[in-house]
Amino acid sequence: MKVAVIFGSASDKPIMKGAGDVLREFGVAYSAHILSAHRAPEALSETVKMLEKEGADLIIAGAGLAAALPGVIASQTTLPVIGVPIAVGGLGGLDALFSMAQMPKPIPVAVVGVNNAANAAHLAVEILAVKSPELKEKLLSYRKKMKVDFENEYKEATL
Amino acid sequence: MKVAVIFGSASDKPIMKGAGDVLREFGVAYSAHILSAHRAPEALSETVKMLEKEGADLIIAGAGLAAALPGVIASQTTLPVIGVPIAVGGLGGLDALFSMAQMPKPIPVAVVGVNNAANAAHLAVEILAVKSPELKEKLLSYRKKMKVDFENEYKEATL
Amino acid sequence: MKVAVIFGSASDKPIMKGAGDVLREFGVAYSAHILSAHRAPEALSETVKMLEKEGADLIIAGAGLAAALPGVIASQTTLPVIGVPIAVGGLGGLDALFSMAQMPKPIPVAVVGVNNAANAAHLAVEILAVKSPELKEKLLSYRKKMKVDFENEYKEATL
Amino acid sequence: MKVAVIFGSASDKPIMKGAGDVLREFGVAYSAHILSAHRAPEALSETVKMLEKEGADLIIAGAGLAAALPGVIASQTTLPVIGVPIAVGGLGGLDALFSMAQMPKPIPVAVVGVNNAANAAHLAVEILAVKSPELKEKLLSYRKKMKVDFENEYKEATL
Amino acid sequence: MKVAVIFGSASDKPIMKGAGDVLREFGVAYSAHILSAHRAPEALSETVKMLEKEGADLIIAGAGLAAALPGVIASQTTLPVIGVPIAVGGLGGLDALFSMAQMPKPIPVAVVGVNNAANAAHLAVEILAVKSPELKEKLLSYRKKMKVDFENEYKEATL
Amino acid sequence: MKVAVIFGSASDKPIMKGAGDVLREFGVAYSAHILSAHRAPEALSETVKMLEKEGADLIIAGAGLAAALPGVIASQTTLPVIGVPIAVGGLGGLDALFSMAQMPKPIPVAVVGVNNAANAAHLAVEILAVKSPELKEKLLSYRKKMKVDFENEYKEATL
Amino acid sequence: MKVAVIFGSASDKPIMKGAGDVLREFGVAYSAHILSAHRAPEALSETVKMLEKEGADLIIAGAGLAAALPGVIASQTTLPVIGVPIAVGGLGGLDALFSMAQMPKPIPVAVVGVNNAANAAHLAVEILAVKSPELKEKLLSYRKKMKVDFENEYKEATL
Amino acid sequence: MKVAVIFGSASDKPIMKGAGDVLREFGVAYSAHILSAHRAPEALSETVKMLEKEGADLIIAGAGLAAALPGVIASQTTLPVIGVPIAVGGLGGLDALFSMAQMPKPIPVAVVGVNNAANAAHLAVEILAVKSPELKEKLLSYRKKMKVDFENEYKEATL
Repeated sequence: MKVAVIFGSASDKPIMKGAGDVLREFGVAYSAHILSAHRAPEALSETVKMLEKEGADLIIAGAGLAAALPGVIASQTTLPVIGVPIAVGGLGGLDALFSMAQMPKPIPVAVVGVNNAANAAHLAVEILAVKSPELKEKLLSYRKKMKVDFENEYKEATL
Repeated sequence: MKVAVIFGSASDKPIMKGAGDVLREFGVAYSAHILSAHRAPEALSETVKMLEKEGADLIIAGAGLAAALPGVIASQTTLPVIGVPIAVGGLGGLDALFSMAQMPKPIPVAVVGVNNAANAAHLAVEILAVKSPELKEKLLSYRKKMKVDFENEYKEATL
Repeated sequence: MKVAVIFGSASDKPIMKGAGDVLREFGVAYSAHILSAHRAPEALSETVKMLEKEGADLIIAGAGLAAALPGVIASQTTLPVIGVPIAVGGLGGLDALFSMAQMPKPIPVAVVGVNNAANAAHLAVEILAVKSPELKEKLLSYRKKMKVDFENEYKEATL
Repeated sequence: MKVAVIFGSASDKPIMKGAGDVLREFGVAYSAHILSAHRAPEALSETVKMLEKEGADLIIAGAGLAAALPGVIASQTTLPVIGVPIAVGGLGGLDALFSMAQMPKPIPVAVVGVNNAANAAHLAVEILAVKSPELKEKLLSYRKKMKVDFENEYKEATL
Repeated sequence: MKVAVIFGSASDKPIMKGAGDVLREFGVAYSAHILSAHRAPEALSETVKMLEKEGADLIIAGAGLAAALPGVIASQTTLPVIGVPIAVGGLGGLDALFSMAQMPKPIPVAVVGVNNAANAAHLAVEILAVKSPELKEKLLSYRKKMKVDFENEYKEATL
Repeated sequence: MKVAVIFGSASDKPIMKGAGDVLREFGVAYSAHILSAHRAPEALSETVKMLEKEGADLIIAGAGLAAALPGVIASQTTLPVIGVPIAVGGLGGLDALFSMAQMPKPIPVAVVGVNNAANAAHLAVEILAVKSPELKEKLLSYRKKMKVDFENEYKEATL
Repeated sequence: MKVAVIFGSASDKPIMKGAGDVLREFGVAYSAHILSAHRAPEALSETVKMLEKEGADLIIAGAGLAAALPGVIASQTTLPVIGVPIAVGGLGGLDALFSMAQMPKPIPVAVVGVNNAANAAHLAVEILAVKSPELKEKLLSYRKKMKVDFENEYKEATL
Repeated sequence: MKVAVIFGSASDKPIMKGAGDVLREFGVAYSAHILSAHRAPEALSETVKMLEKEGADLIIAGAGLAAALPGVIASQTTLPVIGVPIAVGGLGGLDALFSMAQMPKPIPVAVVGVNNAANAAHLAVEILAVKSPELKEKLLSYRKKMKVDFENEYKEATL
């Protein structure tokens, strides 16, 4: 197992699915866990320890509102933690974005865009590619293909 | 000991002093602790457990930025937790206000105004007065005196 | 009667119901009142006085927009006042959140998250548990059950 | 007496002075009062009643933070109430602006710009000029002079 | 004619209708005009002059986005101008609220809440009541009835 | 070809169509291109160079979220670049507005309102009219007609 | 004369000087005017007409707060109008940015960054270069020199 | 060389120094570069290519305002890019935070807190530790020492 994807409730699943889709596309093994920094802190701690033992390389954590999840995870591991702020309610995800980005030294969370779980997974792949030449190759191919596809798809535009 | 005041760094002390001043004025015993949800989570957990054993009635927690402190405390105790968002940097405390207020069910934090540690202590006194008729008396006298003082001080105004 | 739940209009009821549900679950007696700081200030003052006489221990007040309700109540009682900012219109509840949190010394409002009336009730239970060992027990059981339920419900996750 | 200027604390005086300066310039009688919706609600109610009896035509109210002052006054009188949001702390006056503007029907506050007590007084003069032809004349002269002065002062500009 | 209600496009009508309803309820004569500070500035200027000649006492102006309408009107008349910020698009009316409130000295706009045209009309009635004892009576009756209605409607609440 | 309209994805087309409609109305030749600063930077650079060679006079670029598109284009050309911030997700377009407006010296982007592609095209026409007396005439006619239409359409309003 | 730089008060001069510096550097003739949409609307209209007669090609307008200046100018001319939002008071220029950007169709303002008068001038030069090959040359040289200077200045960096 | 630290101007150096300090503390080799996405895009592209050839493992990029730097770098490499939003001017860094976080799929930037270059370096160390057991050891020691130091420093607190 390489990547662990953790999120706070079943209602976050449609957003976090974006991460799973990308990880599968790159052939990166991952496990998914619904855990809560506030409602089940002990289970969270145990899972983080277990993930470390099982050799997880990094953690993606999605949460809305106070969104303490990635920060609390980061305080319990030295693995890189990527945070996905999820928009819940009327503040448009600004609350979660602030809660994740504004972490104190020396406990960083790597924040991506609101609801952008796919980008969390792309970042995970980039991080894993630092040590995996194979994954690096896949990334380069993916980017190349992306450009070709983009250009083919959009060769002509009208308004 | 009745109230525990917890904050994340020595730099928060000038703000949090406002809480100590009010608690002393009401004769409420309190202890002060510098602890961090992100930098010293185990020490925080142990202190929260110790405070519960020693019979603390509630906890005031001040923090800036991601400001997970009061929420993480609230996840580890059923004591009421009052949060003081502290303004650090360019976002004016909005980050800490969001992080503290937007807690998920069923783990509330009782948030007061940005940098308003005095109000956190007044809220603490009100909460303790629910069971202490003596403190209730003090509160009523304080309010009465406040009104008299306010009116005396401001009997006449000019512009 | 222990807790009074006050809100400004019938349109706030679907949100405030979240508080009633939790209070009933904990067996905490409560009364509900539709009152307005701006439209019916005298009725509000009289009700607050009546509630105090009848032995209310604390007040939950929900309001949107200028959301002066909890602050005005707090100025007329020394009971703890919990504020629920309700999102009305395009500002996403930010207006109500600011109006409730930014109270002047020494008149605090204990603010919870936007639309999060359930958390207001949980905070109320925590406050009442400061003097009620029985409620404290219920809270501890509730938290324990919450964790077990959470872990059972989410034992496995897929993405 | 025509206009009453009410504000919440001596610290608001440097801002609210801007209103007094304008009212004196237009020869509009005014009284100044330091009163608080939250700290001295009874004194506020009594003063509002007294001002009505003494024939006040309108009220200017300045406040910062939760800034309930003008709204609470408006709930107790049918006189027009002009609100001056005062910037206190890191939110730049946005809190007070929201609290004053977002009043529920049918209790309006006439809000002017953050810290712009002078404009509150100009608005007061415009309102009084609705019934006073003399004040209308003064306003027209003032505007005329303003334009001449503006053009004289700025006849030439360099960069 | 007493009050002129001006707004920038037919799409603002459902919001501005709230002002007409209140003015009719108080028996205040009004005229309605669709005019634009940016698209038809000359027609706007002429209408403002015409309204002054015809004896209008005040102007209510609703606009969204840059919302210059009430400010531009205010620059061309000494009549009180009440601004209704209208929420258009994703900024929730914050753009219009800022544009209307932050007027420079000495050209005030009396701003009410976002989309709250009813409150603009109530403010208009309050302003006109400064010179009209009859309207003052109506206002007092309205407020009295409002309180009775409010209390009758909400005598009992359940959650 | 005079104007190039560039946007980042097919999903932006319904918004950007507003620019095409205006340009056609003024008889200004334009081409449309779907290109991305982040996903296809080389194709973007090549297109910008090609557009310059083909004699494009200015570029309109619409984008949402990080919205780097117009700024990146502006860094590669001395043609005027007009940016249309597109509202995507919960931040209401504020993210794109900031990203486009806050360009560093000396690489400006000319930003118009959120989702307001029509105004981008009107600005383009104004800029082209600086050198084209014919387009200037069309603009003057358009404005004249706009005023007449506006006044005809809105001659009478009711509320 | 090519460019007119208009701003609302002498206090804006330190910001707007940034535009003059750039225009002089490019040898673009300009005139500077202190004028106000709200305080001196007639003088503003006359100046805009005069500028058009004298052959101005475009207008740069800087303003703070409600910042109606560029929009009001744009409603009276078909020349391109570039707006510089100026940060005044606690809202950090957000008020002026919104007021300038959110203009209604078909009256655009070309907005640059908060306080970034230099970029307004660079945009002006780009617009004038659409018809002036000489200015185009200067722009290209400027950019080339900028890059060389940038690289020379920053050849080595240490941290 | 392992890490490249890139920032947009010498004025960002006091902030970015925080990254250098941490990297040196962990013995991670780094190079520093002042480069601009908007002012020197070619030099930026060449440097990114050179850094990849020289075996850089990841890039830290700090920028203020439109802050396109990390996103533009990310579009040209598959190395992980960490963004440090720098607060410049009145928007408190919110502009840079949005510009960096809201990147489109599949080009992520790993954003840390406003002005928090130290956390960017800590994140870099965590990412490098994914492949370096030695760095992993250092991280674990650092965290352990941090906790001991934190607890020693703050053993007792007074208010």
